[in-house]
This record gives sequence, structure tokens and C-alpha cells, in this order.
Amino acid sequence: MPAAAAAAASLVLFAPSRSSSSSSRRTLRRPSLIPLRRATVAPSRPRIPRLVAVHAAVAIEKETPEEERPETFLRAADGHHGAASASVRARFERMIREAQDEVCAAIEAADGAGKFKEDVWSRPGGGGGISRVLQDGGVWEKAGVNVSVVYGVMPPEAYRAAKGEAVSGNGNSSVKAGPVPFFAAGISSVLHPKNPFAPTLHFNYRYFETDAPKDAPGAPRQWWFGGGTDFTPAYIFEEDVKHFHRVQKEACDKFDPSFYPRFKKWCDDYFFIKHRGERRGLGGIFFDDLNDYDQEMLLAFSTECARSVVRAYVPIIERRKDTPFTEQHKAWQQLRRGRYVEFNLVYDRGTTFGLKTGGRIESILVSLPLTARWEYDHIKGGGCTHLILMSMDARRKTKQSVSVISRA
Amino acid sequence: MPAAAAAAASLVLFAPSRSSSSSSRRTLRRPSLIPLRRATVAPSRPRIPRLVAVHAAVAIEKETPEEERPETFLRAADGHHGAASASVRARFERMIREAQDEVCAAIEAADGAGKFKEDVWSRPGGGGGISRVLQDGGVWEKAGVNVSVVYGVMPPEAYRAAKGEAVSGNGNSSVKAGPVPFFAAGISSVLHPKNPFAPTLHFNYRYFETDAPKDAPGAPRQWWFGGGTDFTPAYIFEEDVKHFHRVQKEACDKFDPSFYPRFKKWCDDYFFIKHRGERRGLGGIFFDDLNDYDQEMLLAFSTECARSVVRAYVPIIERRKDTPFTEQHKAWQQLRRGRYVEFNLVYDRGTTFGLKTGGRIESILVSLPLTARWEYDHIKGGGCTHLILMSMDARRKTKQSVSVISRA
Repeated sequence: MPAAAAAAASLVLFAPSRSSSSSSRRTLRRPSLIPLRRATVAPSRPRIPRLVAVHAAVAIEKETPEEERPETFLRAADGHHGAASASVRARFERMIREAQDEVCAAIEAADGAGKFKEDVWSRPGGGGGISRVLQDGGVWEKAGVNVSVVYGVMPPEAYRAAKGEAVSGNGNSSVKAGPVPFFAAGISSVLHPKNPFAPTLHFNYRYFETDAPKDAPGAPRQWWFGGGTDFTPAYIFEEDVKHFHRVQKEACDKFDPSFYPRFKKWCDDYFFIKHRGERRGLGGIFFDDLNDYDQEMLLAFSTECARSVVRAYVPIIERRKDTPFTEQHKAWQQLRRGRYVEFNLVYDRGTTFGLKTGGRIESILVSLPLTARWEYDHIKGGGCTHLILMSMDARRKTKQSVSVISRA
Repeated sequence: MPAAAAAAASLVLFAPSRSSSSSSRRTLRRPSLIPLRRATVAPSRPRIPRLVAVHAAVAIEKETPEEERPETFLRAADGHHGAASASVRARFERMIREAQDEVCAAIEAADGAGKFKEDVWSRPGGGGGISRVLQDGGVWEKAGVNVSVVYGVMPPEAYRAAKGEAVSGNGNSSVKAGPVPFFAAGISSVLHPKNPFAPTLHFNYRYFETDAPKDAPGAPRQWWFGGGTDFTPAYIFEEDVKHFHRVQKEACDKFDPSFYPRFKKWCDDYFFIKHRGERRGLGGIFFDDLNDYDQEMLLAFSTECARSVVRAYVPIIERRKDTPFTEQHKAWQQLRRGRYVEFNLVYDRGTTFGLKTGGRIESILVSLPLTARWEYDHIKGGGCTHLILMSMDARRKTKQSVSVISRA
């Protein structure tokens, strides 16, 4: 049942929408920088009602801001005390919160100037999250690291969006495209540096369970793991590519020799901008709907992957963050950022699912870069001279041909 | 049958994909600025095949670049000679090409520095187009004005995307969600100025016909008109809003007193960013699937609308293009540009249809701004003091509350 697991990918980015509503209220009280009108009711439109219909299909409770981080976002029955603390739910939540702390500490240390801003929120029926964003730092333009725990019922609309357009062939035929109660927990992060030679990083690890099916008493609940770590440079440095993929391979090889080649290919295939015929970046690993291994093993594997993020990424940043660059380099980075936006808004299952289900938009779209650029027909019109640095051999190895490093 | 008409909205932006393929070839010959690998074959991916499936569902011929603008892009039987020259197809094509010339001339005159760059292309079986883009001019950051004529067969995938998720209730039950041969012609334009006080303009007028249904010999072919003109300021000036809407109303009122209120509401409802709860801009007019009036009247109405673009927009630009602005104003414009990107990539029927059917990507995405910006939680964190200029009365009149003009 890939649908359910895909849903978790986005749910981990959900957070409260209070800032939207509070800014609307603020509008009438005092002069402030406010957006165009925020409609409180979706507009009626007799001839094209579908645009509204999707927006209404929200099945997740509204969030409440919290002053402090709670010990756990789990419901009491799932919580950290007693036997429940050994549950996969509880251990996965602890893992992602530790990973969030670790990554944020490493990013702040490497950045030197910026600090993460934190938003904590919870939902009345259980669940919640911690969003952390560092913006306009010394090294990073925008860095978001979010964790969340969600108890929800997946609406049919969102279920279909998460599932995509084909029928799942994963062997879990017990779940139909109707409302599905689920639990999801995950960590999700996108880190966009300022220097055009320093790559963007994305990682996301999530755990998902559905309730036991009602039409099959005694049948077990379903569970899945999903996630991945991938990077997106604007310019390729062969040593960076090798280092990044080596770390991914090392993490995978501790568990199963088939993991790295399989999840590497999955990553290449997933982060593909179809309308451009381009990959988004230079890959890494990606997996979804993973339940055909021992659950403990997959928990340990997800943990290993999340714990490998810092050593895969920060050394590359340290090498590239102070590289001198020109306006042309920056413009090329901005064009590649435009591609990032295109992928996330058009294809990414987590993002498109999140937009349909009405989560906290600032958290869902924190993955977008601070700035991006779209030039008409850039390739055709471009007059810059650039040099392809990556060797054919390295290209073959990474199954990625080509990006470029400027000498101009 | 709203689906077909919606399809036309994007088809008018189609143009040749030669620049992609030629740049791929160029890659291996000489150092050049090139993107990440362009895959020539969609990647295989056993577990999530749907991502590939959509990309393959292309039913429109590849394009050929042309050195000169032909007299017509119509097939000979539809052409400009003899009785055929009086057909709606032929007259609509003449109208959009004249409108393109008129708008481009007015934009160049107002810009002072920039010139439109033209790409002409055709398809072997008939159809073609003229794409014109002015980039980094004196007044406009990016201005695209495209016309195109398309003979195509709409694939089921694209048909569903164009149709949206609800079943059409337009009374044309003869067309199923299978392949549909169609003719479409249209003009489409997005004009993004540099000055943050000068609004973005979008307009698009299109005419659409399907072949007569095969299962009903002798039944007439279906036809529809669609289109609209709307504007998107980052800051509201009441006089601009009034002027813009007055011109739209005048154009509408020449034909039917119900048009302006009806198409104004349709515009407000269509350009709605659901996940933000915001409208994209300050409206204008929008209509689609329009066939319940006399065909000649609708042709004349579309012509009047297209011919009203310059007087609706250019006077506003003249007033705002040299307004002094600060970095804060520019940053706010860039955030609103981000919203523009979100709407176009996530919701716009023409864009999403175009991305699925494999048209010329540079033409489809010319609507995106040159630059855009996404700040995390801007409203909450913003410290700028701004003043709401628009009166409650004007807001009520335009059914839009609020944007702001800075005094800081």
C-alpha cells in the first residue's frame, strides 16, 4: 500500500496554520504587511467546482501552538512510559527528535551566524511537531528541519493524491481508497546554502502505521518505513559526489547489500523532473513503502540513515561555503533553484499531498528555496563558457551525466 | 465539455522543444552551460510507475523551427484563401496575430529599452506558433506574448488533467474521456515588470473546436471560446484597480450586461491559491467553455477583450514604472511572485495540462517570473510598517480586500 506511506512523507511537514489566521485578524486592527485577501470560505464557482472540492477534503485536526517542547507527541497509550515506550512508534519519535537536534546543532555550528527559529505545536487528539528554520544565516540561505507526529484519517482525495494515478501493486489489498486512520511520524529537511558551489540537501525519514482493517478483525495493523537523503548541487565536484554517495552506501551496506543499488536507483527515478527531462539533483538514496524486511531492522536502518546526514553533507559544505563566485554562478544556481521549485510543486508526493490536505503551509513549503529564477530559453541564449568537470567514468558510476563548473 | 476548452488554454503556449534537444547534443561537443542530465528515455521504476506513465501520454506532433512567420498556421482546408478565410478558425487566427503585434509594439514602446525575441515554429500536420519574449528590459523583467494554432488529439491522461477531477456538467455528453481530435488557437501572455509598484498582467484568449463525434454522423462539431485578462499587483493603488476593472467592464458591456459580473466572479474564483487561502491577484475577467451565445458575437467579444489589453494595462505601467522603491518593496514583490509560481505550477489548468502533454517547456513556463522568493513565515516575522490604502468601499466593489502600500 504505497499510498499510505507516501502520505506520511508529507505529514511530517504539517504544522499549525495559526500564523495565517492571526495575520488575517491582524489586518483589521493595525497597519501591517499583509498578503492579498485570505478567503475564509472557499469561493463558490458553479462551472468548475472541482477546484474547491479538493480543498474541503481535510481530515486532520487544527493545531495549537505550544510554548514548550513536550516529552512526546504520542497519545498516552503510545507514550514514553512503561511498555509503550518500547513500541516502534515511541522509539521512532525519539530517534527523529534526536536526529533533529543533531542536524540543527551541526548546521548552526557550520553556519557560524544563523540560529534556528523554533515553532512547537500539537493537536488536541494527539500528535504535533517541532519546526525549525534558519534563514539568511552565514552559510545557509534557508534551512528547515521539521519533525512531526500525526494521528489522522486520510481522506479519499488525499489518499488518491498520495497514491498517484496508478493502482498500487504492493500486495496490500485490504486497504481501499476510502478514509484510512493512520499514525505517521517523521523528520523532513531541506537545506539551501548561499554559495552556488555548495549543494542543497534534502532528507526525510518517516514511519507509518494504519489501524487494523475493520473488515478483518484480528488482522494486524500495517506499517511501513520510507525516506531518503539526496543532494542537489548547481555545479558538480567529483569528490563531493563520491563522498556523498560513499556515505550513503556505507549506511546501506550495514544492513543489506541490495539496499544501496536499489535505493540509489529509486532516488534517481523519483527526483526526475519529467517535463524537463532532467533529474533534480545528483541523487542519493530513496525508499518508500518498505515493509518487506524485519521491522526492527528497518528501524535500525532508518536510524543509521538519519544519523549519516551530518557526515555526508557538512564536510562538503565546509569545502565549498567560502568558494569565490561571480554573478553568473549565482544566476545559474538560481535557475537550478527554479527546477527545485518545479519538482516540489508539480511532482513531489509529500508536497502535493500536503497542499491538498490543508496542513500548515509555511511548514510544507519550507522546502522551497529563499529565491529562484526562471529565464526564458536560458540554454539557447546563454553565452557563458563553462567546463564540464565530471569525468565520463564518474558520470557512469553515479548514473548522472553532467553538470558544470564555470571557469569564466 | 469544459475539458476541451481548458486544454486549449495550455496548447496556445506550446512551441518547439528543439532547444532542449539541441542543447543535449551540444553537450558532448563543446564546453557550455548545460543542465543536469536530460534523460532521453523516462526512467524505469517498478514500484511507482505512474510517474512515468503520464509523461508518455503525448499526442501532439513534434515541432519544426521556422525562419519566417507564415501567412497562416492553418491547414490548407482551413486556410486564408477563398471561402475558408471567412471561417471562425481563420478569423480567430488573424485576430490573435494582430493582437500579438499590437501588444508587443505597445510593450516595446513603453519599455524603451527591451526588444522581443521571436521564435516561430510549425508542426508537419498543421499548426504552429510564434513565441515572443522580452527579458530584462527597461521596464519589464520578463514579458512573454505567444500565439499558437494546434491540431491535436487529446490523450485521456491530458483530458483528465484538463478536466479536473469532477465530472463536467455542461450538457455536452457526447464526448467521453477518450482521445479527442481538436483544433485550438490562442494568444497567451504574462508580463512581469521590474518595479514592485507596477502590476503583473496576464491575458489569454482562445478558440477551440473538436471534430464531429464519430458515433453521431452529421452531428455538428463542438466549439468554445475561453480567456480573460487579469492583473496582479504587489501593492494596491485604488485608481489602478478602478481603471483596470473599468476597461474590462466597458469591453464586456458592449456585448451583454451579464458578462462583466459573471466573468469577474469567475476570475476571482479561478485565480485562487487554495493552500494559501489567497487570491493570486486583483482579478479582471475570466471565462471558459463559452458556447451558449452566438458564435459571431463571441468572436467579436474575444476580439474586443484582446484589443482592450493595452489600454487596460499600459496607462498603469506608465504611472508606476518609475516609482522609487526600497529593498523591502522589492522583497515583498518577490514574495508575491512566489505566490504566482505556486498558482501556476499547482493549479493553473493550462500549465499543468501543458506539463503533462510534453509541449515546449520554455513556452509553457514563460509565465513564471524571472525571480521569486519564499521566506519562511514572513507575516509572523515581518517587522515592516505598511499602510492599507484601499478603502473598504473599493474592496467591496472589487470583491478583494486588501493589499498594501508601504510608507516605510
